[in-house]
Amino acid sequence: MSRRILLVGAGKSTSYLLDYLLEHSGEENLEIIIADKYPEAIPEQLHNHPNSSVIGLDISDSTARRAEIDRADIVISMLPARLHLEVAKDCLEAGKNLVTASYISPEMRELDSEVKKKGLIFMNEIGLDPGIDHMSAMQVIDRIKSSGGRILLFESFTGGLVAPESDNNLWNYKFTWNPRNVVVAGQGGAAKFMQEGTYKYIPYHKLFRRTEFLEIEGYGIFEAYANRDSLSYRDAYGLEDTLTLYRGTMRRVGFSRAWNIFVQLGMTDDSYRIENSMGMSYRDFTNLFLAYSPTDSVELKLRHYLKIDQDDNIWGKLLELNIFDATKKITVENGTPAQILQEILEQKWTLQEADRDMIVMYHKFGYELKGKRFQLDANMVAIGESTRHTAMAKTVGLPVGIATLLILNGKIKTPGVQIPIKPEVYEPVLNALESYDIRFREYEVPYLGYNPEAVGN
Amino acid sequence: MSRRILLVGAGKSTSYLLDYLLEHSGEENLEIIIADKYPEAIPEQLHNHPNSSVIGLDISDSTARRAEIDRADIVISMLPARLHLEVAKDCLEAGKNLVTASYISPEMRELDSEVKKKGLIFMNEIGLDPGIDHMSAMQVIDRIKSSGGRILLFESFTGGLVAPESDNNLWNYKFTWNPRNVVVAGQGGAAKFMQEGTYKYIPYHKLFRRTEFLEIEGYGIFEAYANRDSLSYRDAYGLEDTLTLYRGTMRRVGFSRAWNIFVQLGMTDDSYRIENSMGMSYRDFTNLFLAYSPTDSVELKLRHYLKIDQDDNIWGKLLELNIFDATKKITVENGTPAQILQEILEQKWTLQEADRDMIVMYHKFGYELKGKRFQLDANMVAIGESTRHTAMAKTVGLPVGIATLLILNGKIKTPGVQIPIKPEVYEPVLNALESYDIRFREYEVPYLGYNPEAVGN
Repeated sequence: MSRRILLVGAGKSTSYLLDYLLEHSGEENLEIIIADKYPEAIPEQLHNHPNSSVIGLDISDSTARRAEIDRADIVISMLPARLHLEVAKDCLEAGKNLVTASYISPEMRELDSEVKKKGLIFMNEIGLDPGIDHMSAMQVIDRIKSSGGRILLFESFTGGLVAPESDNNLWNYKFTWNPRNVVVAGQGGAAKFMQEGTYKYIPYHKLFRRTEFLEIEGYGIFEAYANRDSLSYRDAYGLEDTLTLYRGTMRRVGFSRAWNIFVQLGMTDDSYRIENSMGMSYRDFTNLFLAYSPTDSVELKLRHYLKIDQDDNIWGKLLELNIFDATKKITVENGTPAQILQEILEQKWTLQEADRDMIVMYHKFGYELKGKRFQLDANMVAIGESTRHTAMAKTVGLPVGIATLLILNGKIKTPGVQIPIKPEVYEPVLNALESYDIRFREYEVPYLGYNPEAVGN
Repeated sequence: MSRRILLVGAGKSTSYLLDYLLEHSGEENLEIIIADKYPEAIPEQLHNHPNSSVIGLDISDSTARRAEIDRADIVISMLPARLHLEVAKDCLEAGKNLVTASYISPEMRELDSEVKKKGLIFMNEIGLDPGIDHMSAMQVIDRIKSSGGRILLFESFTGGLVAPESDNNLWNYKFTWNPRNVVVAGQGGAAKFMQEGTYKYIPYHKLFRRTEFLEIEGYGIFEAYANRDSLSYRDAYGLEDTLTLYRGTMRRVGFSRAWNIFVQLGMTDDSYRIENSMGMSYRDFTNLFLAYSPTDSVELKLRHYLKIDQDDNIWGKLLELNIFDATKKITVENGTPAQILQEILEQKWTLQEADRDMIVMYHKFGYELKGKRFQLDANMVAIGESTRHTAMAKTVGLPVGIATLLILNGKIKTPGVQIPIKPEVYEPVLNALESYDIRFREYEVPYLGYNPEAVGN
C-alpha cells in the first residue's frame, strides 16, 4: 500500500517541495495529497499526476481537517505559521508525524512532552532560515568541537536577494518573498547580540546604520544588519561560552543606508493609520513626515532634515521610487505608513517574469584549538530558475521534502517537538541537498575576532 | 452638621490641596478625612487640625473603602490613575460626587450614562495638565467664538521645570515630578498633529529634533517637543475646522537636542531588561550601545557614532551626568535601559532642599474675525515655594480643591463623567486661581500662522 503524505497549504513556496516528493513518489511508493483552500490555483500537472491528488480544504473546518490527517501517514504544514497549531494538535491526537518550516511557537513547544510520550516527531524550522542555517552551522560546530576545538565566535547571515542578471535597480533589491516582512524588518525592540563577551544593543532607528560588510567569492560585497535576537539559539547550539554571537540579514552594499531614510522619516511605522490615505499622492505622503512650510519644497525639506548631500547617491534611489511624484496616487485605504510604503515599493521592486532570485548564506566560525586560534568561513549561494522555481522555494522546500522522507523511512528517529540540530537530521539532509547543488564552500581565514573594519576593504 | 470630604491618596502633590481645604474648612463647615495607605507619612499639623483627621486606608480593602465613601459627602481621589476606577464605582453606588486630576480612562467614561442617571458629577482632568490647560484654553476659545471669530490655530505647551534661581546644571532641568515619565516621554507611537490643514507625524526617534521655540516675557526662551496626540481634544474643544492643532512639552533651550543622544543610543528603551545590570559601571552601560572595539575609547566611539563635534556643548551635558565614569556603579537589578538611565539622571537631577520648581504654560490662538486674522498668545508661570509646596502641587491641587467646593456648594451642577471645559466650571475655578496668583497674561501678536522660524530669533 502506498504511503500517504498530506501537504496542507500549497502556496508558491512549495514548487520544489512538490517536485521533490513527486520525483520520489514512484520508488518510495508515495501518494501525495495536496490540500489547499484554493485548489484551482495549483498548477495543472499536479492535478494530473498519478501519484498526487489536489483537494480543497479550509483549514478552519476542523472535521474535514481531522479526517484528512487521520488518513495520512505524515503531515507537512506549509500554512502561515499561526495556523500550524491546530494541525499539530490533530496530528498529536491522531498519532501522525509533522513537518513545518516555521519557527516553533511557545504553544507548539508546549506539546513536546505529549509528542514524546506518543513517540512522534514534530520537525520544525527545517526550511532555509530557519532550517539550512541550523543544519549547516551545527555540522561545522559539532565538527570543531569533536576535534577538541572551542568556539569563540559564531556569526551567521542570510539574504533573499535578486540574482546578478536581474539586479537592475539602484537599490540592488527586489521583493523575492513577503514584502511586508521586508518593510517592518527589525521592528519590535532593540537588536541584541554579543561581541567579544559583552552584550550589545542597537535600537531600531539605528539598525540600518550599524551594518557590516561581507564578501562572497564570485559575487562581490554584501552588507548585513543585525537580527532582533542573535542569542536565541545560544543554548540550542551549545554556544554558552562563545564570546561573539551575531546573526544578520544580508543586502547589497548601500541598501541599508538608503533604507534608513524611510526609517528616519517614520515611513516604516505599522502602529497607526493615516486617515484618507486613498488617493493621496506619493508626494503628499512623503510630506506628512516633514515640517510644514508655506514655500519650501518637499525635496529640500527632506534633504535638510536628513542631511542628504547634493551628490549623495541615496537621492537617486529615492527618485527611482517616485516618492516625490505628485501624480502617482496611493490606493490603500486608511493605511499604516508601512502599508503605504509597501505599495510604493511594489511598483518598482516586484519580480518580473524574466527575473531570478538569489539566496545567500554566510557563516563565520572562530575557534581555539590546541592554544591556537582559527577561523572558518562558509557560504552558500543559490540562484532561482524561474519566477515559480525560485531559489527561495528551493532552499525552503527541499529540506522539508527530504526530512519528510527521512522521517517516513525511519531514518530520523528521535521523537519530540524539535529543530534540525542533531547529526541524525542534518547529516542526511545536507547530504541530499548537495545533489540539488545546495552546498557550502568553506574557507580557512586568519582569525580576526570581531573586527568589522577588516572586511570589504 | 459639617460636610465630609474624603481625600483618598495624600501624596506630595496634595500639599496645596489640603491647605486650601483646611483654610476654607471653618467658613465652609468642612470635615476633611485624609485617607492614605501610609498615614504616618502625612505631616503632623494635618493630624492635629481640628477640621481634619488622618486615617489608614488600603484602597484594595473594598469594605473599608466603601464604608469611608458611604460616610463622605464628596470624594477626591489623588491616587495613581489606575486606582480611580474602584473608587468611582463605589461613588456611583453610594451616590457620591467624585473629583480627580487624572485623564479619563475608557472604563471611567463608560460610567457616564449611569452617573448622569443618578445626577452625579464625576469631574476629572482638573489638575494642571490636564486641567488648567483645558480651562484657560476654553475660556479664550469661547470668548473668540462668541465675538464671531473662527479659530484657525491652537497650540498649547506646558512644562514642569526648575525655577530660575535653582537652574544650575547644564541641562537647565531637574526632576520635579515622576522621573520615569520624563525618561519614557514620547514613547509608544508617532506624535500626531495638524499644521495648516495637513496631518503631520513625527516618529519617536526624531521627536527631540523637531522642537520649536517659545518666548515668555521675563523668563526667556523655551523649546517644545510635540506630545503624542495633539488631536485628542479637537472635538471636545469644538475645533473640528481648525487648521493647526499642536500640543507640546516645554523645556529650556538645548535640552531636547542633548536628550536626543540618549534616544539615539537606545538608552530610553523600556522594553527589555539588561541582565546583570547591578554593579555595572556607568561607562560599561554606555558602551552597551556602541560598537565593539578592542582599542577605541567609549568617548570617541560615541562622538563618531552620533557625530558630536569637538566643540559641541552637548558633550559637557553628557560629562556632567558621568555616563563615562568607570567607578560609578548601577544599583538596579536586571533593569531596562530606561530604568538604568533614570538612576543615572537622579544622581544629578533630584531637587535639593533649597530648589524651587517652575510651571510654564503657553497657548497660541490664531483666529479670523470680520475677514481679518489675529493672534492671541497667553502664558502662565508659577514658581514653587518649597520642596513640599511646589508649583506642581499648587497648580495640580488648587483646581481640584476649588472644584470640590464648587460642586459641594452646588455651583457646578451639570451631571456626568466630565472634564472642565464648560463655563460653569472654568469661570469660577480660573477666577479663584487668580487670588492664588495663578493667572494668564495675554498678548495680542501679529498672526503668523504656523511658522516656527519666526519665534525666538
